[in-house]
Amino acid sequence: MNLPPDAFARDCASRVVLDRIGDRWTVLVVVALADGRLRFSELRHRIEGITPKVLTQTLRALERDGILLREVFAEVPPRVEYELTDLGRDLLAPIDAVRIWAEEHAARIVRNREAHDAD
Amino acid sequence: MNLPPDAFARDCASRVVLDRIGDRWTVLVVVALADGRLRFSELRHRIEGITPKVLTQTLRALERDGILLREVFAEVPPRVEYELTDLGRDLLAPIDAVRIWAEEHAARIVRNREAHDAD
Repeated sequence: MNLPPDAFARDCASRVVLDRIGDRWTVLVVVALADGRLRFSELRHRIEGITPKVLTQTLRALERDGILLREVFAEVPPRVEYELTDLGRDLLAPIDAVRIWAEEHAARIVRNREAHDAD
Repeated sequence: MNLPPDAFARDCASRVVLDRIGDRWTVLVVVALADGRLRFSELRHRIEGITPKVLTQTLRALERDGILLREVFAEVPPRVEYELTDLGRDLLAPIDAVRIWAEEHAARIVRNREAHDAD
């Protein structure tokens, strides 16, 4: 069987992809790289509160998915930079729309939660 | 301090919202309700592989966030239906763009992972 991708279907690969691109840290890493390549330390600084371990895991997973490239420059000490691939650039529009929505509606959702919990 | 929302900032509410709307099951529930109200059993049928427990948790969280409404009809047995609020309808566009991206690029990402793991 070669059905069209359908995230509603159990075992569809798009579900696994949805988990990856829906992840909070993925969203922030991809959006942080929108304006160009960054070093590990720059990413860590830009994304407040991310631990080095989680940032490493997120970068490795995104490299494996082909969403970003890791480039090592032969300097002393070696410089490592990350940048979006074409696939990663293509992901920017939908993922940034989600981030913007979250920022625009965060206050309202927090109020909704408080009102709900007060009932 | 009353800074503008910034998902890159630690402790910003938009991060919590990002976790909610990035969740796989949230995406599928919200998109499933795009065409109108559905019962619990209809949602469960539409979203293959979701357990009743996880569906219940997802629906409760989305109701608390003000993204969907739960309506109970006084019938025997009682009929319970779920529908998107205005806030939920507003979320549809960005969230559905993410789902469509995942479906369109799932095959390529799976190939990227296989190629990466074969290295």
